[in-house]
Amino acid sequence: MSEKLDSLRERLELIIFGTDTPAGQLFDVVLIYAILASVAAVVLDSVEALHLNFGTWFLYLEWMFTLLFTVEYFVRIYITNRPFRYIFSFYGLIDLISVIPSYLALVVTGAKYLLIIRILRVLRVFRVFKLIRYLAEANILLHSLYLARRKMLVFFFTVMILSFVFGSLMFVVEGPENGFTSIPKSIYWTIVTITTVGYGDIAPQTVLGQMISTVAMLVGYSIIAIPTGIVTAELAGQLGRGRHSRTCSTCERSGHDVDAMHCKFCGAGMVLED
Amino acid sequence: MSEKLDSLRERLELIIFGTDTPAGQLFDVVLIYAILASVAAVVLDSVEALHLNFGTWFLYLEWMFTLLFTVEYFVRIYITNRPFRYIFSFYGLIDLISVIPSYLALVVTGAKYLLIIRILRVLRVFRVFKLIRYLAEANILLHSLYLARRKMLVFFFTVMILSFVFGSLMFVVEGPENGFTSIPKSIYWTIVTITTVGYGDIAPQTVLGQMISTVAMLVGYSIIAIPTGIVTAELAGQLGRGRHSRTCSTCERSGHDVDAMHCKFCGAGMVLED
Amino acid sequence: MSEKLDSLRERLELIIFGTDTPAGQLFDVVLIYAILASVAAVVLDSVEALHLNFGTWFLYLEWMFTLLFTVEYFVRIYITNRPFRYIFSFYGLIDLISVIPSYLALVVTGAKYLLIIRILRVLRVFRVFKLIRYLAEANILLHSLYLARRKMLVFFFTVMILSFVFGSLMFVVEGPENGFTSIPKSIYWTIVTITTVGYGDIAPQTVLGQMISTVAMLVGYSIIAIPTGIVTAELAGQLGRGRHSRTCSTCERSGHDVDAMHCKFCGAGMVLED
Amino acid sequence: MSEKLDSLRERLELIIFGTDTPAGQLFDVVLIYAILASVAAVVLDSVEALHLNFGTWFLYLEWMFTLLFTVEYFVRIYITNRPFRYIFSFYGLIDLISVIPSYLALVVTGAKYLLIIRILRVLRVFRVFKLIRYLAEANILLHSLYLARRKMLVFFFTVMILSFVFGSLMFVVEGPENGFTSIPKSIYWTIVTITTVGYGDIAPQTVLGQMISTVAMLVGYSIIAIPTGIVTAELAGQLGRGRHSRTCSTCERSGHDVDAMHCKFCGAGMVLED
Repeated sequence: MSEKLDSLRERLELIIFGTDTPAGQLFDVVLIYAILASVAAVVLDSVEALHLNFGTWFLYLEWMFTLLFTVEYFVRIYITNRPFRYIFSFYGLIDLISVIPSYLALVVTGAKYLLIIRILRVLRVFRVFKLIRYLAEANILLHSLYLARRKMLVFFFTVMILSFVFGSLMFVVEGPENGFTSIPKSIYWTIVTITTVGYGDIAPQTVLGQMISTVAMLVGYSIIAIPTGIVTAELAGQLGRGRHSRTCSTCERSGHDVDAMHCKFCGAGMVLED
Repeated sequence: MSEKLDSLRERLELIIFGTDTPAGQLFDVVLIYAILASVAAVVLDSVEALHLNFGTWFLYLEWMFTLLFTVEYFVRIYITNRPFRYIFSFYGLIDLISVIPSYLALVVTGAKYLLIIRILRVLRVFRVFKLIRYLAEANILLHSLYLARRKMLVFFFTVMILSFVFGSLMFVVEGPENGFTSIPKSIYWTIVTITTVGYGDIAPQTVLGQMISTVAMLVGYSIIAIPTGIVTAELAGQLGRGRHSRTCSTCERSGHDVDAMHCKFCGAGMVLED
Repeated sequence: MSEKLDSLRERLELIIFGTDTPAGQLFDVVLIYAILASVAAVVLDSVEALHLNFGTWFLYLEWMFTLLFTVEYFVRIYITNRPFRYIFSFYGLIDLISVIPSYLALVVTGAKYLLIIRILRVLRVFRVFKLIRYLAEANILLHSLYLARRKMLVFFFTVMILSFVFGSLMFVVEGPENGFTSIPKSIYWTIVTITTVGYGDIAPQTVLGQMISTVAMLVGYSIIAIPTGIVTAELAGQLGRGRHSRTCSTCERSGHDVDAMHCKFCGAGMVLED
Repeated sequence: MSEKLDSLRERLELIIFGTDTPAGQLFDVVLIYAILASVAAVVLDSVEALHLNFGTWFLYLEWMFTLLFTVEYFVRIYITNRPFRYIFSFYGLIDLISVIPSYLALVVTGAKYLLIIRILRVLRVFRVFKLIRYLAEANILLHSLYLARRKMLVFFFTVMILSFVFGSLMFVVEGPENGFTSIPKSIYWTIVTITTVGYGDIAPQTVLGQMISTVAMLVGYSIIAIPTGIVTAELAGQLGRGRHSRTCSTCERSGHDVDAMHCKFCGAGMVLED
């Protein structure tokens, strides 16, 4: 009996974690499509016209996907050796968040909790995070951002200081009569301006306000260069490190290209790496 | 007779594919001007005032260009050795799309098909794609983008996940009363915001909504750096490879570093250049 | 007595300038939270609804923080050896500006000076500058911008020349009837357009005006590349210098290339590292 | 007499072209201020309120500057050895354009030519181009842009093709009822969108239109990376070339830093260049 269970567990492990077996690949593909379809159902259900016509269908689909993801969640707990480590891991929490709102919506009913029900319904969109598991290449980008995290923080801090200063200046200069009703609203306007989004829902009306916002725009235009510079330098550094990392075993000098078959300094043969 | 035809075919080949004979260059120049004039005619014909005054002229021009491009299409089929390969190639399909709508517009008539006729008329603008043939330098840019395609896809995916998450958050927070009538519309707003376009047709009205959109803008401002970093690193890499332009005089393979003393492929000594 | 004072001064010095003693770290943390809380109070007090309900509390908080920063200011003067150098230094002036407005608001009263009182109240937001002291990493970014200052100035000058030229063109083409009431206003519009902010409070209405603004946008899109290029090249240069991190064991000077076999300063042999 | 004239010419030459004599420097400074003041006068005169109050003063100033620039123009012709070469040079034409409009405004009078008079008045802003002479650093930026001119052209061509394609698609999908009254107007909208300016004067109303514009924005967001990549690679290349261009005269190997005093390969002494 225990042997049977063990073999079941092993087979499930192959299907869920394996990426080179047909069953494992099929599982991945089915899961990706299920995630996409499930998110699409939530998104389309929010359109009034579609909800009226296909609401029941969306409900059926919703429960089908919820059951699928619930089964997936428990199977993942079952096959892993350290269940608690998975449950509290990044992916474990995402898998939990993917199913919790649907069950909570069963419990929370009644006209009093309309807002909570609405929030629970929309929270199901967060299933989209389950896709992160399949974005291998994203790691390089995230790793670059991670390496640049301290510089990025300093950058955000600079933007924050600037938006507080420009925001309070504009609050004084333009005032509530021109839409700058409070400093928080002025700070919102400053970030809309510095990031060059520029909705135009609030726009400076006075000459002095337009002059200050001109300065804010040019400052924003200059500091847009900073994160770009940071990420580019970080990415270029990572690529460059990958390119020239081989060392000659004869003269022990490094800096050889990935495709070099002979040392460029002493001419000795070099073994090609992958 | 067959010889005559053969010589005709050869002469046509020289004119159409040749870029160093006067006839070949003349053909290219005439074709480029014909494409530009033809697209300009379609664009100007869409202006109400110009259509009323010069509509007939635009019609004559249109058929003149259609006939020219039709002749060009059949001549290209005639002179190529593998007609089907050309017909189903990228350029073959573009050449076909340049003439098809005009002929279809002859067949599809009547008040019932007004929309289709309108679409067919506008589709003629796609002739502008015929110009790609003459954009040699574009290949380097397209090649850089092609090399970076996987990273770019990951980037688009990241933008997509972000716009789904921010979109559904804003749908809950702002709601239909502030213009966020459905999640798809909220996603549209999020992309307008993250890409820093910011039309202002929909703008957050609540304090919480403005706070969330502030975060969305700063996130957008940061990830604008990612494609720039990718393309810059890719372009710099390509230029750098151009700098490795030394050729080994023994095995005649190129791509050696400036400071290489031995060919990295055959190990033969190399003379150091400047 | 003098000894006692000296030891007090030394202890204060340790607390205020020390960053590795528990007391010094506590002082830094308390000051950072005080700055943030103080700025938050000013910002929130500007919201009408919050001012009506919690106005008195904000006033108490305000005076508590003002007294704290006043004490900090005088202690800093007391413990430094050259008081005047501190008073007229960048940080000294910021510390002064953080407390002055509150005391001035005591003196300036009466309905006549409403605007000045309003300005003084908002000026307290500038306390946020006190945080610069704790942004060590910012120095690298500021240093990059400082190294690129001349190129940046040329860039701003180029933007200025362009905005004058496009601004006066649009003033002639669109005229006061389409919102371009004067050249200064047209210049404001041009900067809004070139920096890709695009509020939409003023937008071209005539066909010629829309053509010119199309050119202005494409120009803006191109020159957005210039500051990015400058900062990226500068940052990459700084990182690159970091890579040249080998030190000669003879003359102990650093900055040698990875492939250097002799010290570039004293000519002594260097052992090649990995 | 001729000698006297010759010495006058020589002295004028020293004043106008000299940048290291006090007189030459004074001339440059006076001219820069005159250009700035003259442009400021034209700009401020366009403001209704200022024109009514100070119109006569602006007129006096205007003629003072016009006379100054006229004298400068003729002196430049007088002292140069090849007058026609100067007259038809870039700077010669700019110097001419700086004075011509003022004199033309004397000839063209009467209510019939109101528009021409208005244009002539605004054309005086183009004097701002005279400042280019003094922007030495600008040459590096312009040189980078010049080196990248073919890639930039390809980039503009790509933007053009994209805006024609998206413009005609949106014209069909949205139609005149949603503000897309003609293909040229749709192309204007597409460029406003792709460059992320986003005025919001025209915005997509239909679901399909919003989907297409979402694609247009993401495309715009991606191709914003291309000019940045081009300029950065070009600037980095120029800086890099400057850094490693020295060759050892003993072993004839290159790649030495600017501050190297010994060859990093053979250890021989190197002469420090500028």
